[in-house]
Amino acid sequence: MKAIVLQEKGQPIEYADFPDPQPAEGEVVVDLKAAALNHRDVWITKGMYPGIQTPGILGSDGAGLHEGRACVINPNIGWGDKRAHQRKDYTILGMPKHGTMAEKVAVRRDRLHDKPEHLSWEEAAALPLGGLTAYRAVFTRGQLQSGDKVLISGVGGGVALFAFQFALAAGAEVYVTSSSEEKIEQAVAMGAKGGANYREDGWHKQLREASGGFDVVVDSAGGPGFALFPKICRFGARIVTYGGTQGKVPGFSPQLIFWKQISILGTSMGSDEEFAEMIAFVNQHQLKPVVDRTYPLSEAPAAFQRMDEGQQFGKIVLTV
Amino acid sequence: MKAIVLQEKGQPIEYADFPDPQPAEGEVVVDLKAAALNHRDVWITKGMYPGIQTPGILGSDGAGLHEGRACVINPNIGWGDKRAHQRKDYTILGMPKHGTMAEKVAVRRDRLHDKPEHLSWEEAAALPLGGLTAYRAVFTRGQLQSGDKVLISGVGGGVALFAFQFALAAGAEVYVTSSSEEKIEQAVAMGAKGGANYREDGWHKQLREASGGFDVVVDSAGGPGFALFPKICRFGARIVTYGGTQGKVPGFSPQLIFWKQISILGTSMGSDEEFAEMIAFVNQHQLKPVVDRTYPLSEAPAAFQRMDEGQQFGKIVLTV
Repeated sequence: MKAIVLQEKGQPIEYADFPDPQPAEGEVVVDLKAAALNHRDVWITKGMYPGIQTPGILGSDGAGLHEGRACVINPNIGWGDKRAHQRKDYTILGMPKHGTMAEKVAVRRDRLHDKPEHLSWEEAAALPLGGLTAYRAVFTRGQLQSGDKVLISGVGGGVALFAFQFALAAGAEVYVTSSSEEKIEQAVAMGAKGGANYREDGWHKQLREASGGFDVVVDSAGGPGFALFPKICRFGARIVTYGGTQGKVPGFSPQLIFWKQISILGTSMGSDEEFAEMIAFVNQHQLKPVVDRTYPLSEAPAAFQRMDEGQQFGKIVLTV
Repeated sequence: MKAIVLQEKGQPIEYADFPDPQPAEGEVVVDLKAAALNHRDVWITKGMYPGIQTPGILGSDGAGLHEGRACVINPNIGWGDKRAHQRKDYTILGMPKHGTMAEKVAVRRDRLHDKPEHLSWEEAAALPLGGLTAYRAVFTRGQLQSGDKVLISGVGGGVALFAFQFALAAGAEVYVTSSSEEKIEQAVAMGAKGGANYREDGWHKQLREASGGFDVVVDSAGGPGFALFPKICRFGARIVTYGGTQGKVPGFSPQLIFWKQISILGTSMGSDEEFAEMIAFVNQHQLKPVVDRTYPLSEAPAAFQRMDEGQQFGKIVLTV
């Protein structure tokens, strides 16, 4: 079959021939219709991920057919039985196990969920890992309630956009940040109450004035901006962090954290239970993932480059 | 009556005559038997607290008699009806409202709780604010479970010692830090599994090895040590912060926070509901607050000095 293969650590990915998957006990083979990219895939191509094994097929997100059933795939492998946290040996599809950027993938039968009928193959493929991460961030960790004021930082990213859509669907009043005015405008067109450019001085004061303070913040940047969140949060706020692309937080102060009874909640991926809840939520609210662009599988290198440049608004999808 | 009075901001406290309290509507007068110090009282004498009004009687902690009933006083004024956080206008007894370092104090009748029978007046007076803060930190915020591995930093302090006693009583395995070997030994004698001197390099590695990693950390220091907590925490751990005496946390990194699904939980004081639960917990487990030293009310300045020097192990109490 054809697949996107990392032949050796540090080499560019290749569109190449690869042996068809041989399902192990309890596994089935899915004929993929579409796959989607995550930052994790790009980091793996740069050697910036633990446990890289080659040759390997990348891709955690996929949708396709198994014996005529239209499916999306839960990428979790061995999360374990606690909602609070994963097991130490938890991994996800697409490294070290061969992933979804291929014509076929072998997964355990219980990883298959019915594809939401209102979604195209491309939209369905965009959903799994980003949707799971955002669902856990917003609901399990952020404990979002209807009417909450919510800030989503870096709104172009896949997880950030899912968090944005989920929060809106749950009845929150949502604000965004981005370094791109265009992305802020797109978010406002989708229902954001307002936004600010985090490269401008005083962005946090703008947002505090506009919102009156936040109950929930969802962030994957860290860095200097993170230290400002407590200042624009209400008493009892939850600041959820699922990444640190801007590095360490300088001069993090406990004072506002304890006085305002703020919670800073780390989150990563999600449990199988949360995956099922996320699919149900998407069905209930008829949500459609934002697809930035689609590329044929053979043009995956161009798709990876687009993600690496951070230009996207929504998920980048490969059609098989 | 006699009282410990701050006559003017920035002046030393005085043992002085002061008019008897005139109870407002809904208030009663308590004849105090003992009062206790909190760091807050020392900070107020240094002008390091918002909203200082003079002349004022200090003291948040007190126990005494009201019409023959032996009482401890809930120091909360206007926490509000949410457990998650206080109202913005929340204050506590002892500034701006006249406090417990006096022969008499006027408080609302619903602030009175029966004095636990197994406690002396001094022990009962030691309980309110420290016990409330520790109870919320350990249970409401830290979600401590029996069998959890717990780290209490700076174990000589009043809140830290209550947190230590509460965690032990709830069936946790407790470790401590201090800059004093003597305090670590005292904690071990009381039931700590081990401890480390946070002034020694590698203290966190010692504790990680000894414990296998922590489920709950309770800290009021902040500073550089705080940045090490995620490294010695297990997946799903809760790091509870109720102070920042060592200042800002330099180089706080999101990576371990999100990967290990760690929660950093700010906490301050506690609700009326938590106060009642704390008293019930102390009765149920027949816990006795650790009293460091007692001074007659007239010698309060010496008591304040001892607290300011940080030499105490447990609560410093004034007898009336």
